[in-house]
Amino acid sequence: ARIDLNCDLGESFGAYTLGRDAEILPYVTSANIACGFHAGDPSVMRRTVRLALEAGAAIGSHPGLPDLAGFGRRNMDVSADEVYAMTVYQIGALEAIVRAEGGTLRHVKPHGALYNMAAARADLAEAIAEAVYRTNPALTLLGLAGSESTRAAERLGLNAAHEAFADRGYRADGSLVPRGLPGALIGDAAEAAARVVRMALEGRVSTPEGEDVPLRADSVCLHGDGAHALEFARRIRAACEAAGIEVRPAGGA
Amino acid sequence: ARIDLNCDLGESFGAYTLGRDAEILPYVTSANIACGFHAGDPSVMRRTVRLALEAGAAIGSHPGLPDLAGFGRRNMDVSADEVYAMTVYQIGALEAIVRAEGGTLRHVKPHGALYNMAAARADLAEAIAEAVYRTNPALTLLGLAGSESTRAAERLGLNAAHEAFADRGYRADGSLVPRGLPGALIGDAAEAAARVVRMALEGRVSTPEGEDVPLRADSVCLHGDGAHALEFARRIRAACEAAGIEVRPAGGA
Amino acid sequence: ARIDLNCDLGESFGAYTLGRDAEILPYVTSANIACGFHAGDPSVMRRTVRLALEAGAAIGSHPGLPDLAGFGRRNMDVSADEVYAMTVYQIGALEAIVRAEGGTLRHVKPHGALYNMAAARADLAEAIAEAVYRTNPALTLLGLAGSESTRAAERLGLNAAHEAFADRGYRADGSLVPRGLPGALIGDAAEAAARVVRMALEGRVSTPEGEDVPLRADSVCLHGDGAHALEFARRIRAACEAAGIEVRPAGGA
Amino acid sequence: ARIDLNCDLGESFGAYTLGRDAEILPYVTSANIACGFHAGDPSVMRRTVRLALEAGAAIGSHPGLPDLAGFGRRNMDVSADEVYAMTVYQIGALEAIVRAEGGTLRHVKPHGALYNMAAARADLAEAIAEAVYRTNPALTLLGLAGSESTRAAERLGLNAAHEAFADRGYRADGSLVPRGLPGALIGDAAEAAARVVRMALEGRVSTPEGEDVPLRADSVCLHGDGAHALEFARRIRAACEAAGIEVRPAGGA
Repeated sequence: ARIDLNCDLGESFGAYTLGRDAEILPYVTSANIACGFHAGDPSVMRRTVRLALEAGAAIGSHPGLPDLAGFGRRNMDVSADEVYAMTVYQIGALEAIVRAEGGTLRHVKPHGALYNMAAARADLAEAIAEAVYRTNPALTLLGLAGSESTRAAERLGLNAAHEAFADRGYRADGSLVPRGLPGALIGDAAEAAARVVRMALEGRVSTPEGEDVPLRADSVCLHGDGAHALEFARRIRAACEAAGIEVRPAGGA
Repeated sequence: ARIDLNCDLGESFGAYTLGRDAEILPYVTSANIACGFHAGDPSVMRRTVRLALEAGAAIGSHPGLPDLAGFGRRNMDVSADEVYAMTVYQIGALEAIVRAEGGTLRHVKPHGALYNMAAARADLAEAIAEAVYRTNPALTLLGLAGSESTRAAERLGLNAAHEAFADRGYRADGSLVPRGLPGALIGDAAEAAARVVRMALEGRVSTPEGEDVPLRADSVCLHGDGAHALEFARRIRAACEAAGIEVRPAGGA
Repeated sequence: ARIDLNCDLGESFGAYTLGRDAEILPYVTSANIACGFHAGDPSVMRRTVRLALEAGAAIGSHPGLPDLAGFGRRNMDVSADEVYAMTVYQIGALEAIVRAEGGTLRHVKPHGALYNMAAARADLAEAIAEAVYRTNPALTLLGLAGSESTRAAERLGLNAAHEAFADRGYRADGSLVPRGLPGALIGDAAEAAARVVRMALEGRVSTPEGEDVPLRADSVCLHGDGAHALEFARRIRAACEAAGIEVRPAGGA
Repeated sequence: ARIDLNCDLGESFGAYTLGRDAEILPYVTSANIACGFHAGDPSVMRRTVRLALEAGAAIGSHPGLPDLAGFGRRNMDVSADEVYAMTVYQIGALEAIVRAEGGTLRHVKPHGALYNMAAARADLAEAIAEAVYRTNPALTLLGLAGSESTRAAERLGLNAAHEAFADRGYRADGSLVPRGLPGALIGDAAEAAARVVRMALEGRVSTPEGEDVPLRADSVCLHGDGAHALEFARRIRAACEAAGIEVRPAGGA
């Protein structure tokens, strides 16, 4: 069994610092680097690419909606054509920075509202998959496991990495328990780590009601900010390694 | 003799239209396309790349300062590191769009205040040349003829295209007559065309004082907006062709 | 009978020009001036305020979503608190510019997606009404006739101006025929003018199916851009005056 | 003797937090609140205004250059007209938020590069003073002591508050020792506090060379961020109070 541990990085902007990139990177195999729309700026991107290369993480583009004030978390009524163009733009911007530092871009993971909209809407999922494919068909696309995102990627022949969450509850149909409902969040690091191990070894997760359901988890999302982020990351990585799971990038390295 | 006729394009933004791109393109051999900082947005960039490919123009990146409100024309006290990073970013963004449309990026020409600052300051010129080189050493860098820009490019071994202006006066030292002084602007299209022909055939231009001075002109800038832009473009292109000058991209096509 | 003729103005930005403000102003009694979020910048705002003062139009703030690339036309998932704060901000910014030029701010009309979301959603309508009220309770709030916008304004005791459209079809329930359906647009200037006259004199409009329905129209929206905008404006104003309708600002002047 | 202790606040933006506003406010008599150009957004501004009102600090507008990526610290080649318009805009935006919360705007202090450019250039100083005067002539303008800023304010009849720095060295002509030179920074909190006391009681400061020079200090700048900011603030306030200096806003409260 194998698993990828991905994390959103490079979300600082100008004088603003966000995230504990250097501290989280030792646990990360795939670094999703913000591209200047929801967070990040060219100088932050370059600095983060260097950090990720030093840490040996695979580097991916983390494109978002053009909404710095909302950190790319507010849904916007963007068209599929707009999503296509902004995704190509952001992939290319980061790819050039990676190339200039001697590295190779490996994957793409949309951010926030763009990620969520693409998981639910086929037209936006196709626009993103098309953007990835036409920019570089060797890139892996990370999307919500079993969603429109991964389906669109697979239809185009892209390598799709199904992403799961260590700290979120799942319903019987494989969707996330909405925030605010009981079982939505897994607050205990040991429990989260055990769930990841089971996802990787058995491809299964249990619902808040105790039902056991299948879940494909090629990559698990680590958080780069917040009080318990480092503790969760450390525990998840250690548990996976202790269980003999190979921890490596979903998109190659 | 040969000459390149370059033009800044894709400077619309969202609902805002600027420039007469489709009308000017038939006269243009090198299209410099704005990259979203001083003008342009991802959708405008894609549309303009398609127009330029259809017209057979060589495509270049036209990076600018992050100053949409000032159209990239206001000098800003940016560091060489910031200039390096923003240039790589903008080149990469456009290169991905060009690649996704099946084309190839050929050159880079900085815009407005970035162009002027790079012409005068060695540190910024080097930052831009380094950005071009590390992103793709096969790209041609267009800069003010005989300036810090072209010198920095040549030191790195980049192909540097020396740019001249058909509608601007030159002083004996090869610098532009500052706007506002007598002889700063050439208002007559026929005179402008004749000056371009002479630059291409003889590598010389005459000053307002009537002195005859050398001027290297690999590429001449056509304007894409304004009342007389099309008339100037048509005259310059026709005069060059009538004089047997080969009109083709400085950066290949 | 009386009617207000309002128009969105000051939607240029930096080097970008949009709208024919000086030409449309003679027909306008209420000028809604963009405030820098969806369009406009401080220099454009000042210039437009001066134009409107010279033309004798009442001046209003035209706040929008923070989406220059989308011209404020894309719905965004903003919270009521965010809408409240961004509306106070934009009203204040324009009010200071008006005051500095010796004028008085009279009204507020939200723009584009903000206007549409406020017409349909009570929470956002209340946020905007509250923003207007707490900034200056003497301001008039222009909103879609008979919508959540005007209801929220009236609940707070604000002067609400019900806005109608000369060039749009209405359904029996007083809502607009959605674009794309038959009867959505009134393409003929004479017909549009006749509809405005009837709205003002009788408070009625006929549906595409020929039904006659009540419609309160305190203010009618003129367009400041597009091929036929001036012709529509001229015809509407002339028809109202010919019918003895008093054409004056809904918010005082 | 009296002194005002001012501090830049509200410099967070969206998801980004900067500064320790709640902790520093107990020491502050004048709160300079960012207005959305170099930092701050409408929601942050509202939150900060509430904090400042609760703390009993006088509230001022802290307008900056339109350069979020550079935090308003990069000089830009803006015209006096642009500076005038952006200053009125930002004052008005904050004033409306203050008014909506039941408070009163008292002063204006330009930020970063705008502050520095206005201190040195009479045309920009006049543009800012004019913007303050025409928006509200009762506002106090904080500027570098003895600079073009305060001179322009005084020529217009505005109340000018001369600002001094507790942690910066002064030269014999009253200007700041440039960063990087010996004596530029006062690193010891007790020394900084003693210097402020002397400025307030005697209107004098000693240079790195030991010379004793006059310095008018109506207001002293506290920093809201950084490791030692709170310690400096606490010491300066305590020392002033211990010396019987009245600590109160320069612009009234």
